[in-house]
Amino acid sequence: MKKLGLVYVLLIGLFLIYVLNYKLHPDPADPWDTAGLRGNIEDKYVMVTFQSGIDYWKSVLKGFEDAAEELNVSVEYHGSTQHNASEQMTVLEQAIAKKPAGIAISAVNSKLLTATINKAVESGIPVVLFDSGAPGSKAYSFLGTDNFNAGAEAARKMAELTGGKGSVAIITTPDQHNHQERTDGFSHTIRSEFPEMKLVSVKDGRGDQVASRQAAEELLSQYPKLGGIFATESNGGIGVAEAVRGSGSTLQIISFDTDKGTLDLVKEGRIAATMAQGTWNMGYWSLTELFQLHRDLQEDPDAYEGSKPLPVPDKVDTGIDVVTRANVDNYYAK
Amino acid sequence: MKKLGLVYVLLIGLFLIYVLNYKLHPDPADPWDTAGLRGNIEDKYVMVTFQSGIDYWKSVLKGFEDAAEELNVSVEYHGSTQHNASEQMTVLEQAIAKKPAGIAISAVNSKLLTATINKAVESGIPVVLFDSGAPGSKAYSFLGTDNFNAGAEAARKMAELTGGKGSVAIITTPDQHNHQERTDGFSHTIRSEFPEMKLVSVKDGRGDQVASRQAAEELLSQYPKLGGIFATESNGGIGVAEAVRGSGSTLQIISFDTDKGTLDLVKEGRIAATMAQGTWNMGYWSLTELFQLHRDLQEDPDAYEGSKPLPVPDKVDTGIDVVTRANVDNYYAK
Repeated sequence: MKKLGLVYVLLIGLFLIYVLNYKLHPDPADPWDTAGLRGNIEDKYVMVTFQSGIDYWKSVLKGFEDAAEELNVSVEYHGSTQHNASEQMTVLEQAIAKKPAGIAISAVNSKLLTATINKAVESGIPVVLFDSGAPGSKAYSFLGTDNFNAGAEAARKMAELTGGKGSVAIITTPDQHNHQERTDGFSHTIRSEFPEMKLVSVKDGRGDQVASRQAAEELLSQYPKLGGIFATESNGGIGVAEAVRGSGSTLQIISFDTDKGTLDLVKEGRIAATMAQGTWNMGYWSLTELFQLHRDLQEDPDAYEGSKPLPVPDKVDTGIDVVTRANVDNYYAK
Repeated sequence: MKKLGLVYVLLIGLFLIYVLNYKLHPDPADPWDTAGLRGNIEDKYVMVTFQSGIDYWKSVLKGFEDAAEELNVSVEYHGSTQHNASEQMTVLEQAIAKKPAGIAISAVNSKLLTATINKAVESGIPVVLFDSGAPGSKAYSFLGTDNFNAGAEAARKMAELTGGKGSVAIITTPDQHNHQERTDGFSHTIRSEFPEMKLVSVKDGRGDQVASRQAAEELLSQYPKLGGIFATESNGGIGVAEAVRGSGSTLQIISFDTDKGTLDLVKEGRIAATMAQGTWNMGYWSLTELFQLHRDLQEDPDAYEGSKPLPVPDKVDTGIDVVTRANVDNYYAK
């Protein structure tokens, strides 16, 4: 009888181990697994950028990692170190070769990257674009800022800061499409919504602190009563703040993005506001979309061949926030 | 010894039941539960529409339900039976009173619904808008079709069907904003991309089959060589098909949406193409966003008070597909 008891104990113990093991490593085809959205930790999702070391991507990667942790999948981060299309193409080729579960990429050059992006899609890897798109490519979705709208929001904030009156100027990088859109959104909104305001000048700051400082100094001497400057990127904003510091002018500065230098100047009150992009959203929702696409394509590799409705949106506007002294503490990287 | 064996068996059996029970109803605060995205089946998410019986919402609700099943939460569907703002306000008030985990609503009237939508948000219920928005409200996100883009895609398809030459016309509902946007997208694209095509007329079809048929008959007698008509909604498309049927004209018809009547005409070849909205996406991603917002607000009810970045996108363009005879079978309701 003692032996029989032991046999019971052993059998039940083995069954227990089996059940536990089964619950911890569920078979994806099993109905038990529908109780929640859960991937395979072996599935690797890759995020690809350019200038991979800059602060800007940190929050995007955080969102990408947060979603991966929730969904029980893995991530890898790669990027070209420089602002260089052929370097990014090589990085993307290397990622494709490893056959990941999905790739989210911010394209340094929409035209030059298109062929490699298409190669990934054609080999069955889900690809979404974030921040900087490639509209002609076969990628399934784009997630990023609506830059025209961001410029429009900046104009409304500028009107609030200046009492809706007087002259304002823009310092931008005219040869970059997203900066042109910010400029268009700002100027269109000033023209159409604020009849007592006037946009007197749009200057080239070349995305550079020193050039933007010089441009701002020229504006200050040409328009001594200038009420505000909108800088469409953060180096420009810092340059404008330097120019204004020594001048005795009280003009309002609105900048773009939330790198530490810009946030510090907002905190000191030298930059009135900066436009924060939804970078965490770009990463989080990129991974969520890739997860859906991967699951679909695993069930049926030809799922999207017959021009079926896609299970992900065409375009996601990740939003824009106005950051001022009042809420700046919420925007420092954590 | 026999008794001791039984005690072992009982103890191990009880432990097994405990573990199984624990795994099936995990405590949300427990680390085991991070292995996947999983809600509480008691959490109810509500979808609110108007004209709640029409086919159009079926695929939206399917997406909403699919996401709920994956995430292990519950859904309810409500709506005003008519195209009536005060009726929808009552439905929304009733939904708010039950304190659901989230509400996705398509607003029958953006202005009249705003106060009730804001009341829901202020009482701590996450709200997103889909299909028909309320831009001035406090809802966290909007998910729907970019109608200007949908019109532009229709124009490109029309150019393909007509060889990029000749005259075309639009039959629309001019007093509805989304139809105006479709008209603008179509006419802008014809003008800017197809110099050998000409938009000769934009007529009011009043969203009605008979009125649209008459409008199409007038167009056919006035422009016997007309190459195509774009109808911005489905009743209009059916009316145009009827007008063309008796006329001997070979003009190309592009319609909008995927109700059965329209799809049947596409299948018969009498409507060349129809523009399918991403209705499943509207439902699926509405629920997914509400799930995120609910989780955030449960952890910290004041999460969004201090103007922090939101964990959901501002706007989601759910996409547009061109449906032709070649892929029409993928678009019938399942």
